[in-house]
Amino acid sequence: MAYDVIVDPGALEALPDLLAREARRPRFAVISDSNVAELYAGELVRGLAGQGLPAEIFTFPAGEAHKNREWWGRLTDGLVEGGFGRDAGVVALGGGVVGDLAGFVAATYMRGIPVVQVPTTLVAMIDSSVGGKTGVDHPQGKNLVGAFHPPELVVADPRVIRTLPRAERSQGMAEAVKHGAILDEGYVTELEEMAPALLAGSEEAVGTAVRRSVEIKGDVVSRDEREGGLRQILNFGHTVGHALEGVSDYSIPHGAAVSMGMVVEARLGEELGITQEGTARRLGRVLEGFGLPVTVPAGLSSSRILPFLRSDKKVRDGRLGMVLLERLGVVARGREWVHRIDGQRLEGLLNRAMGRNGPNPDLV
Amino acid sequence: MAYDVIVDPGALEALPDLLAREARRPRFAVISDSNVAELYAGELVRGLAGQGLPAEIFTFPAGEAHKNREWWGRLTDGLVEGGFGRDAGVVALGGGVVGDLAGFVAATYMRGIPVVQVPTTLVAMIDSSVGGKTGVDHPQGKNLVGAFHPPELVVADPRVIRTLPRAERSQGMAEAVKHGAILDEGYVTELEEMAPALLAGSEEAVGTAVRRSVEIKGDVVSRDEREGGLRQILNFGHTVGHALEGVSDYSIPHGAAVSMGMVVEARLGEELGITQEGTARRLGRVLEGFGLPVTVPAGLSSSRILPFLRSDKKVRDGRLGMVLLERLGVVARGREWVHRIDGQRLEGLLNRAMGRNGPNPDLV
Repeated sequence: MAYDVIVDPGALEALPDLLAREARRPRFAVISDSNVAELYAGELVRGLAGQGLPAEIFTFPAGEAHKNREWWGRLTDGLVEGGFGRDAGVVALGGGVVGDLAGFVAATYMRGIPVVQVPTTLVAMIDSSVGGKTGVDHPQGKNLVGAFHPPELVVADPRVIRTLPRAERSQGMAEAVKHGAILDEGYVTELEEMAPALLAGSEEAVGTAVRRSVEIKGDVVSRDEREGGLRQILNFGHTVGHALEGVSDYSIPHGAAVSMGMVVEARLGEELGITQEGTARRLGRVLEGFGLPVTVPAGLSSSRILPFLRSDKKVRDGRLGMVLLERLGVVARGREWVHRIDGQRLEGLLNRAMGRNGPNPDLV
Repeated sequence: MAYDVIVDPGALEALPDLLAREARRPRFAVISDSNVAELYAGELVRGLAGQGLPAEIFTFPAGEAHKNREWWGRLTDGLVEGGFGRDAGVVALGGGVVGDLAGFVAATYMRGIPVVQVPTTLVAMIDSSVGGKTGVDHPQGKNLVGAFHPPELVVADPRVIRTLPRAERSQGMAEAVKHGAILDEGYVTELEEMAPALLAGSEEAVGTAVRRSVEIKGDVVSRDEREGGLRQILNFGHTVGHALEGVSDYSIPHGAAVSMGMVVEARLGEELGITQEGTARRLGRVLEGFGLPVTVPAGLSSSRILPFLRSDKKVRDGRLGMVLLERLGVVARGREWVHRIDGQRLEGLLNRAMGRNGPNPDLV
């Protein structure tokens, strides 16, 4: 990638120094949500002032519900009214929602000003702060409005993870397991071994996982900045995962949905004879080690899930595109990075992959 | 540039063929304003249907007043409600306002879908459709919100220019003269000779000017996509020009403002000993040949213009950045592409450049 990712316990304290040295701008707009701003924004602004760098804090109410065009507009107004020029920089301080919204403000302010992503949740460190996706939700769908706007710098402090609820750490690990599943079996094994330490929020274990995940994702993204080809493999587990989120009206958290999605997609690959037998079972065991669900709740039948799959962004000519594994750590590549699955076959396949045709011993 | 610019009399009629061949998409959203849609959009959609390509028209009320976030939101909603996917394409059919607004919709729809720019005014053909700038206005300033989103293809039909009012053609030529002024003295001479034909809307003359301007601008833009360096030379005449627009509350049209701006900036360069003597006079003669104003109206004093200059986006540490010519066709390059002019000196210089210290025989 064209930008640095600094993963360092204590990086948040050192952030004013880092910004002054690595991403210096005459003025900073620190964008954060109501929760995170209270914890870290004041200190950051004082630290920047100590470096002679003026900064102002702009906040929005925490929660995905505020990742919308209205708040994008209000934050933009704040920057305009504050007289921020093209030479200003944005610091996105918070979780995935902050990164997406603040990133989109930066992407569209005077046709784009630099943004430094400072993820403060595990899933943001592991995944969303790297790759340049920014955007807001639309009443009719998540992330329908947005832009690719790679950050100038990413600064992750594994130390802050310890202060978060265990459930957040658990959710955050789904994407890390995915990174291993698509490109590095050894990383999957390593995550399995580190699971207790990761769940406890050990800064060493978190640092190791964030570094390796960023390395894997960064490598994929740098080879395909805009999702035309290779980058699609990052969608492993997400085709079914997004459908599960949709059908549950987003009551299933993203990490849990991706966890179940990966197991179902691995099982589906096995049904198709593309994925090595036993891959779904192994993947399920690792995910369960992080307290993540691997079996789709009985209430979510394939007949409810299918319409969401059929409206997936990757549908072409009625055929669903799905990333399938060859085996753990290796994506199966056909003519494209996604496999085209005929709409007609999908229901039967999905039922079998979800273990809905009698007991399925593979799904733990 | 990474995209083609087709300049051809009759190109508008051939547009469905061109799109089917050069920018084929399973579905098109034709975005246009209320005036242009009435003239050309129906035929385009019928033509696309004839190629088996479904297209829908989305319009907004004509005029810069509607180039705002509200209409960007409404047009985006239209695409979402119409079920347009990531594989759809936008056709921006109209003048500069349409290109900016439709381009920004495309730039931010699902993190960016391709746009084909089909400029239907002379200034859009000569200048704004090439370069990838898109965006909307903010109550506090023009183009404060936007993105760089290069088009997939630009299609210009010089034949439509004949149907426009002579004043629109006159305004459109200011940017063409600028292209010659910064990079090609021969083109300035050619424009001077073609002036009557251009003002009459001759499709040959218009085609020649559009082709040459696109070539010059495209070359600059391809070497500096995001305005960090060389691209700044396209701002020649625009520092003073923008200030004149602002101080007149945008009652001075852009072309007229740039015309006066170029003459004042050339004169200012002469005052500084940077620009060859006589350049402003020559430039003024060419611009007058297109019916463009070259003298700042007496009501606009330097004391009214200065505050606008001082809030220019290119001000750094209180010093204004201005592109200056060495001579016609050659930009004077110092340490940067812009020359830094001290705030203290500006008023005196501006007064002399505007010919406000007694008669100034150089300014015609």
